[in-house]
Amino acid sequence: MIIGPGATVGILGGGQLGRMLAMAAARLGLRTHIYAPEPDSPAAEVSAQATIAPYDDRNQLAAFAQSVDVITYEFENVPADTATFLAGQARVLPGPAALEVAQDRLKEKLFLAEQGIATTAFAHIASREDLETALDTIGTPAILKTRRMGYDGKGQATIAKRGDADAAYHTIRKADAILEGFVDFEREVSVIIARAQDGTLAAYDPSHNVHRHHILHTSTVPAGLSADQEQAAKDIAARIATALNYVGVMGVELFLTRSGALLVNEIAPRVHNSGHWTLDGCHINQFEQHIRAICGWSLGSTERHANAVMTNLVGADVETWSTFIGEPNTVLHLYGKDESRAGRKMGHVTRLFPLEQDPKDP
Amino acid sequence: MIIGPGATVGILGGGQLGRMLAMAAARLGLRTHIYAPEPDSPAAEVSAQATIAPYDDRNQLAAFAQSVDVITYEFENVPADTATFLAGQARVLPGPAALEVAQDRLKEKLFLAEQGIATTAFAHIASREDLETALDTIGTPAILKTRRMGYDGKGQATIAKRGDADAAYHTIRKADAILEGFVDFEREVSVIIARAQDGTLAAYDPSHNVHRHHILHTSTVPAGLSADQEQAAKDIAARIATALNYVGVMGVELFLTRSGALLVNEIAPRVHNSGHWTLDGCHINQFEQHIRAICGWSLGSTERHANAVMTNLVGADVETWSTFIGEPNTVLHLYGKDESRAGRKMGHVTRLFPLEQDPKDP
Repeated sequence: MIIGPGATVGILGGGQLGRMLAMAAARLGLRTHIYAPEPDSPAAEVSAQATIAPYDDRNQLAAFAQSVDVITYEFENVPADTATFLAGQARVLPGPAALEVAQDRLKEKLFLAEQGIATTAFAHIASREDLETALDTIGTPAILKTRRMGYDGKGQATIAKRGDADAAYHTIRKADAILEGFVDFEREVSVIIARAQDGTLAAYDPSHNVHRHHILHTSTVPAGLSADQEQAAKDIAARIATALNYVGVMGVELFLTRSGALLVNEIAPRVHNSGHWTLDGCHINQFEQHIRAICGWSLGSTERHANAVMTNLVGADVETWSTFIGEPNTVLHLYGKDESRAGRKMGHVTRLFPLEQDPKDP
Repeated sequence: MIIGPGATVGILGGGQLGRMLAMAAARLGLRTHIYAPEPDSPAAEVSAQATIAPYDDRNQLAAFAQSVDVITYEFENVPADTATFLAGQARVLPGPAALEVAQDRLKEKLFLAEQGIATTAFAHIASREDLETALDTIGTPAILKTRRMGYDGKGQATIAKRGDADAAYHTIRKADAILEGFVDFEREVSVIIARAQDGTLAAYDPSHNVHRHHILHTSTVPAGLSADQEQAAKDIAARIATALNYVGVMGVELFLTRSGALLVNEIAPRVHNSGHWTLDGCHINQFEQHIRAICGWSLGSTERHANAVMTNLVGADVETWSTFIGEPNTVLHLYGKDESRAGRKMGHVTRLFPLEQDPKDP
């Protein structure tokens, strides 16, 4: 089904990803309708319509579904009830399978295992006893992560040695969890891949991602992988998207181990922070690509015209905005958030380099 | 005065130029408030706030001025009264001098003459007798143009031979006018130039513009000028912007005559259709550049990373939108207008080519 210019794309979530999706849709002549609980959300500011309501307000959800031609989301923790309810009234893309897998670290790992895709060693932790048993197998260091609602380092605790198990279990509040083996990785990379309604795939070149305090700090393209590794990373992303019968843009985070293996760390069923460089480094960026996919359009080329280093502006970083506007080949993106709380993503800058020049990793 | 992220930019006019200005402002973390008489304007759809009111509604204008930190406009025919009234209540940029010159073809020509900048031969036509006298000097073919409110070929008539004078004078309804000598030009080019509050200038490379039915059809960069001609065109634009103490982005249209001379045809005190290629061919596009200038920021680099051909989608052209999304290195921009009337600018596409490759002029 093709949703053409003039139609309305509904977006669940009002943050910066929703904002950039809305702007990409607008550029293609589509209207957007944001559904978010917060007033004055960054996405609503650039959208034709906004509903401010909780995700469990069925009257508002029904009215929202009536007003749009397709519904998508900017975050993977859309409540399952909300997604199911909306799917009964309108087309929701990406579909429920992706949300189900991405919302639950255990399901995610089991899905990947089933596809024969390598991950870190993991075990389901439903009790304190499970944790002891798992530590026997997985060893230390290991990371205890809640099954649900974890992001940017939240809902997880490192177990450096056996003696840390109690504290870690306390940190995650005895939630249903998984234990993951610690990977002494050489680097973290990610692949942003799009899958169209006809199954066509288009992956951007992987980026090398550096985190600070569990929050993405920089994404650099090219990622410094060998051509074989780049292709392998893209192939993994393609297998995941196809297995989920996915429609839209997805981010797949991977570890490159010191022995050269690629392990999938996480799947994000949405546009992804590590793909923001595509806004300035490609003719067709990840946001347009997502809109194309969910509207039933053909995908655009993922070719790069530049090398790029994207740096997040987190919290007070944003106060330095004016230093970036004077830098040549640097593009500033600010999200219009009023308050720069610690850890809050306020914007990003992308530094661009000719294809033949190595991007300096700051 | 620097207007920083979080502040609000007021824009007079709700068309596609206002829309693209609003999106550029949003990307820089600025809010926008559109003032336009039409409901559901393309610009309002991507803006945080919109006032729908006539340009002579002083209460609404005053409230608008109170709600914003700076006011700009997307069209040069902002009524003088409106501009003057707003300038008494808020900062309006570009300033009144540019509007005054751009709204009146006679003042424009006289201003250029005063600056020693070549234009076509011209004469003021205040009566039918003036037209006869002017034709004696300027000869035929010549073009009779109303002093005010002409754009896209409106308000003008060609006088191929003396016998056409009556009909032409009738066509422009005996309005106050100018007669311009006909230029058998080799090509039409334009320069998009930005001037910052501190007087710094930044010009994009000129484009070669082809019109159809008096409406811009394509803009191609590079324009096929010699390096000297490119520099001369940029220098002319710089002299104009400086003489007007201009702040913001301006479009300067020029004729390249068959003898290699550059004659200024028209000044547009705003972002310009022939600069749309900068959205995809430069890191910093004309819309961001305009927002930077009026907010007191430093200008960005005007460097191109591609050669480009921008093609307008006028009227029913827009129905072919889906053919462009499959073309490699082609970026589609649609303006979200509901109705594709004949002659209405509905969108544009930009085809991109590597810098070393000649763009094919379609």
